[in-house]
Amino acid sequence: MPHGWPGVIEHYAQWLPVSDATPRITLLEGNTPLIPSETLAGRLGEGVRLYFKYEGVNPTCSFKDRGMTMAVSKAAEEGAACTICASTGNTSAAAAAYSARAGIESVVLIPDGYVALGKLAQALAYGARTIAIDGDFDDCLTLVRAISDSYPVALVNSLNPYRLQGQKTAAFEVCDRLGRAPEYHALPVGNAGNITAYWMGYCEYHEAGVIESLPAMLGFQAAGACPIVRGEVCEKPETVATAIRIGNPARWQEASAALRESGGRIEAVTDDEILEAYRELSSEEGIFCEPASAASWAGLKLLAAEGFFDGVECTVVATLTGHGLKDPDMAVKMALEPEKAPNELGAVVEMLGLG
Amino acid sequence: MPHGWPGVIEHYAQWLPVSDATPRITLLEGNTPLIPSETLAGRLGEGVRLYFKYEGVNPTCSFKDRGMTMAVSKAAEEGAACTICASTGNTSAAAAAYSARAGIESVVLIPDGYVALGKLAQALAYGARTIAIDGDFDDCLTLVRAISDSYPVALVNSLNPYRLQGQKTAAFEVCDRLGRAPEYHALPVGNAGNITAYWMGYCEYHEAGVIESLPAMLGFQAAGACPIVRGEVCEKPETVATAIRIGNPARWQEASAALRESGGRIEAVTDDEILEAYRELSSEEGIFCEPASAASWAGLKLLAAEGFFDGVECTVVATLTGHGLKDPDMAVKMALEPEKAPNELGAVVEMLGLG
Repeated sequence: MPHGWPGVIEHYAQWLPVSDATPRITLLEGNTPLIPSETLAGRLGEGVRLYFKYEGVNPTCSFKDRGMTMAVSKAAEEGAACTICASTGNTSAAAAAYSARAGIESVVLIPDGYVALGKLAQALAYGARTIAIDGDFDDCLTLVRAISDSYPVALVNSLNPYRLQGQKTAAFEVCDRLGRAPEYHALPVGNAGNITAYWMGYCEYHEAGVIESLPAMLGFQAAGACPIVRGEVCEKPETVATAIRIGNPARWQEASAALRESGGRIEAVTDDEILEAYRELSSEEGIFCEPASAASWAGLKLLAAEGFFDGVECTVVATLTGHGLKDPDMAVKMALEPEKAPNELGAVVEMLGLG
Repeated sequence: MPHGWPGVIEHYAQWLPVSDATPRITLLEGNTPLIPSETLAGRLGEGVRLYFKYEGVNPTCSFKDRGMTMAVSKAAEEGAACTICASTGNTSAAAAAYSARAGIESVVLIPDGYVALGKLAQALAYGARTIAIDGDFDDCLTLVRAISDSYPVALVNSLNPYRLQGQKTAAFEVCDRLGRAPEYHALPVGNAGNITAYWMGYCEYHEAGVIESLPAMLGFQAAGACPIVRGEVCEKPETVATAIRIGNPARWQEASAALRESGGRIEAVTDDEILEAYRELSSEEGIFCEPASAASWAGLKLLAAEGFFDGVECTVVATLTGHGLKDPDMAVKMALEPEKAPNELGAVVEMLGLG
């Protein structure tokens, strides 16, 4: 194709562990909009320019596509018979989509009886083969690791190192759009892979001299699932923000290093704060995201309330990791019932305050 | 913002009825991927290069965003107190999102008792004010027209002429990517606004000398809702492809002109053909779309079966109008139940044929 965005691998090939021999298994992910805040920025502080990196408009509607194009391309290069993961959310959807694109079978292990079909619907639509194991989620994880250790099967869970490589391209895109790095980059933190990947991306651009400064990384966990904030594993993580309901993050150490090295912060936001932020993003900025994504904005408000942005001139980027359509049940739950009116012009005009 | 895609109005301003005084109410819609077919193209014919114009990755996950950025920007320019429409699907979602972005109230009229909250959830998430009228859908349409005729309220239904203006930019993008027009452009047809808009876009580029040839437009209706194919209003349109379940298209005449002038075709595809196409797109190309979108691919297969592409060298673009997450119920309905396995490495390895 002569023109246009070729997907993150082809566009950023020189920054990624790929060669000409690596197939580009792509759905033209990435190149997502960096949407300037119209109304909410002012609530942080007068000198704050705020942008939302809206990852919900990737092909499977979450940032996972960036990592999965890498993971599945490398799986195809290595001749994997199938991809495998234990996941019920955005990871399994992206794994299934890219595996379908590659013509490789996608296998998803789930605990039997545990998962509602609705959560899995997207992976199933992409043709994933789903196996319900007579065990719990940890059993599934143990099985997928054991299988990928001994057979030509590509593990595409968060342990897959190529996924972070793909995800770091979002930081490149932010810098390419702004012409520099922002002062602050806010992210929801669950498994902590994304904050790790962004920091990797920023550091690589910085070392290469593409950007002159680095952002401070601001991570936000849900209060009911905030092991990094508390400094201890959370045995029973619980939050409405299912995409960050993680008690023992896979990239805990790396994320801690990113926070330390960047001079950043990690804080917890309550479910109420997350849902308020979720509503504000859609009804005031026109951006509909997953509840987990809204942790970015909820956290920024928390910092603003303690004066963090007072008198500061800065650019802040907040990543919104997934589209609101990923969690339609939450949208319905949050929705108000319609008002009622007779079939009469005058009555409707009056209700609308136009009379 | 110094770099990056600025949304369809700013990017194509010279082709649109806007001035510097027109506010750009944008969520950075457009610039959607033109995804090359990896596996399905070969089923049409050896000489066919097939691309999918994937409109599901717009901000509200359908092509409606292109028209709505225009309609709401003009509404804001004209000082509208609110936007209004009678819709329960993609139109109301886009209207609500762009109205929220503009800081204008969005009003959606629906027939009382008729609509499931799930269909409306996206519009409600964006903060739309929904009024259930004690009447049917035609009553709602009559009311919104009457209100917009007499009050400073912007009607953003399909009658709004700015919407077609915005939608035509998709044809521009196709030409800009390919460096020319395709030989054929396939589209699902419901209200027939989109096929009208694409044809308008191609013709404008052609008249201006940007492209040297024009595509033949291929329109596909659902067999249970195919008034243009039959040449008569369909009193009770019925199809799984809800986004094209229209019995009396608003742009019937314009679409007929586009088909005639372009030397195109319009055909009907059955629900079974649509659902098969829907499954093939997601499980073979990795592209998850609304059932209505799949009518594009279903129709192309129909033409191929009659030898339409035999011995022809050509480029075909098929528009996929909305994301599969728009209709999660259909995805669940189409999904297979997970297989079951014991928590035992050997058993799972055997099931996967790896043993």
